[in-house]
Amino acid sequence: MEIAKLGEFGLIDRLTKDIEIKNASTVKGVGDDCAVLSYPDKQVLVTTDMLMEGVHFDLTYIDLKHLGYKSAMVNISDIFAMNGTPRQLTVSLAISKRFSVEDIEEFYSGLRLACDKWNVDVVGGDTTSSYTGMAISITCIGEAAKEEIVYRNGAKDTDLVCVSGDLGAAYMGLQLLEREKNVYYGQINDLQKKIAEAKAAGNDAKLSTLNSQLSALKDFQPDFSGKEYLLQRQLQTEARGDIIQKLREAGIRPTAMMDISDGLSSELMHICKQSGVGCRIYEKNIPIDYQTAVMAEEMNMNVTTCAMNGGEDYELLFTVPIGDHEKIQQIDGIKLIGHITDAKFGQILVTRDNQEFALKAQGWNPLA
Amino acid sequence: MEIAKLGEFGLIDRLTKDIEIKNASTVKGVGDDCAVLSYPDKQVLVTTDMLMEGVHFDLTYIDLKHLGYKSAMVNISDIFAMNGTPRQLTVSLAISKRFSVEDIEEFYSGLRLACDKWNVDVVGGDTTSSYTGMAISITCIGEAAKEEIVYRNGAKDTDLVCVSGDLGAAYMGLQLLEREKNVYYGQINDLQKKIAEAKAAGNDAKLSTLNSQLSALKDFQPDFSGKEYLLQRQLQTEARGDIIQKLREAGIRPTAMMDISDGLSSELMHICKQSGVGCRIYEKNIPIDYQTAVMAEEMNMNVTTCAMNGGEDYELLFTVPIGDHEKIQQIDGIKLIGHITDAKFGQILVTRDNQEFALKAQGWNPLA
Repeated sequence: MEIAKLGEFGLIDRLTKDIEIKNASTVKGVGDDCAVLSYPDKQVLVTTDMLMEGVHFDLTYIDLKHLGYKSAMVNISDIFAMNGTPRQLTVSLAISKRFSVEDIEEFYSGLRLACDKWNVDVVGGDTTSSYTGMAISITCIGEAAKEEIVYRNGAKDTDLVCVSGDLGAAYMGLQLLEREKNVYYGQINDLQKKIAEAKAAGNDAKLSTLNSQLSALKDFQPDFSGKEYLLQRQLQTEARGDIIQKLREAGIRPTAMMDISDGLSSELMHICKQSGVGCRIYEKNIPIDYQTAVMAEEMNMNVTTCAMNGGEDYELLFTVPIGDHEKIQQIDGIKLIGHITDAKFGQILVTRDNQEFALKAQGWNPLA
Repeated sequence: MEIAKLGEFGLIDRLTKDIEIKNASTVKGVGDDCAVLSYPDKQVLVTTDMLMEGVHFDLTYIDLKHLGYKSAMVNISDIFAMNGTPRQLTVSLAISKRFSVEDIEEFYSGLRLACDKWNVDVVGGDTTSSYTGMAISITCIGEAAKEEIVYRNGAKDTDLVCVSGDLGAAYMGLQLLEREKNVYYGQINDLQKKIAEAKAAGNDAKLSTLNSQLSALKDFQPDFSGKEYLLQRQLQTEARGDIIQKLREAGIRPTAMMDISDGLSSELMHICKQSGVGCRIYEKNIPIDYQTAVMAEEMNMNVTTCAMNGGEDYELLFTVPIGDHEKIQQIDGIKLIGHITDAKFGQILVTRDNQEFALKAQGWNPLA
């Protein structure tokens, strides 16, 4: 169905009609000039992110449902990164004429799947048109008790540096998708060139063969077997609320924390700068999945560089007091990668062969 | 300066370095995964809006400083429309390579001017790139005591319907700007055609005359005298916090309220639908500025239609109990335009010659 047929308010009604409010802090959701929230006993966390087609996502390899899911998760991740609990979310979408009502419903279904997973209420937004690409802006709101909030600036000398999960896989997933896309369009272009030549030569037999090759190619699905984890990490982002839960259960409160969206190096430098400290990170301790390593090898890339600078893993990077050493080691899915030092020692990566390098932020820069 | 030179974090530092927090509810502003706010005694209001280049604004006639101002004001307006006080704002910007650091500083200077006017803290955001047009997404956060909040659904039979300021001027300002833009580009195209002809004919004397005409035209500023108010209403949007203040001072609490962004008709229908009531609006009472009327005449448009459906006035539409009649009439800048009826009487516009028409929402539909 064409979106113009429903109009803005019709579309919003359709997208939001069956939303059920789950949080006591949501007094009023969609439907007025503002959402109304109530936080008498907690502090309120607010984060916002904008995703632009062609810059942050490519609809040739992410479908709208996964895109909706990911858009919500990357914002939910920022709430967890403050040691908070996500509660509400607003979503603004700008879309061009090429999208149908069903497309937008797909996007919303993914968004709401992510929200349902973490009990987040969709409380507002804006739906409008774009002359060109799709633009998504999401604001997520969460809560935390004042004394629970973890900032980036609390890391102290001798603290342990920890990361959840593994790193570099989302980036390798993106490399894989881009490689396959290039191969695919290379083949299509090639065939289209041959078809034009056959047409010009009036070679009908050849033309017919080429045309069937083209339609077969258009249905072609690349074989990603053995690389499923990389794709999942790129296309199905998960916010690590489970890690926050485990830390709470273990009675651990990180001294500093953030989520890894731009790459480990860049995020470590943020924490060190804001906390006024240095760090020593050990290459051998950086968690890397087997598929990530294999793919890096295949693409002739240094796997540590991918893990340090890849971005989009949305794992948690945090520091804990050295006294929590044993408790941390008992938690599955958390890896100690180094420790905090005095600022004068700088931010150092110690390689497997014991060489020392200063960290550099080579993470993704959307403005470069 | 090129934006890539500074990078995302450099740009954010430059734009936010001298922000001073003004509100006690702002615990932590820009610089972490989330902003942190504290609202122990009030309810929290959240609103968000997305503005797309080519759809919501045209940089050939709005400069970046006014655009920043307007982007903030339209969101601040939504907080006032709930009878709240705006406190914090986050801003996400997606920009293409054609913008410089100075351009973005212009946008921010306008945005911060609007925020300073209403004591709003800029607490976060996102700055990223766009392959095509500029995209702006703003979220504004405000506060109100639970019993102060005015929703759209509280209008009651016999309530008075009021609007602040006057209507239709922002729309006529847009018509004026679009007309001048068309005239201007028409003349440029015309001259460029003649230049091409003179070139082809090898007529150097004529070519030289035409080229000087073209450069004179490029410096041309249209004469907007006598129409300044229309331009101001289109380019320098003001949120009506002053009206909210006056209502409070007079001890009036509206029963329903919203701001007029899409046009009076459309907003009246929202209030009637959500309150389950009808309304009777008198054409003769709709406040229209002299310049709006003159311009409508000049463009051969019906001025009431412009006022009913024009949009972008960001005036307040609200209902008050009939007992507040005298108090309302003593407030400058508020006009009584009709009253609320039982739902069965419908939503009616009574014309100057006493004809009755059902209201239609012909307001701006960004998805049409």
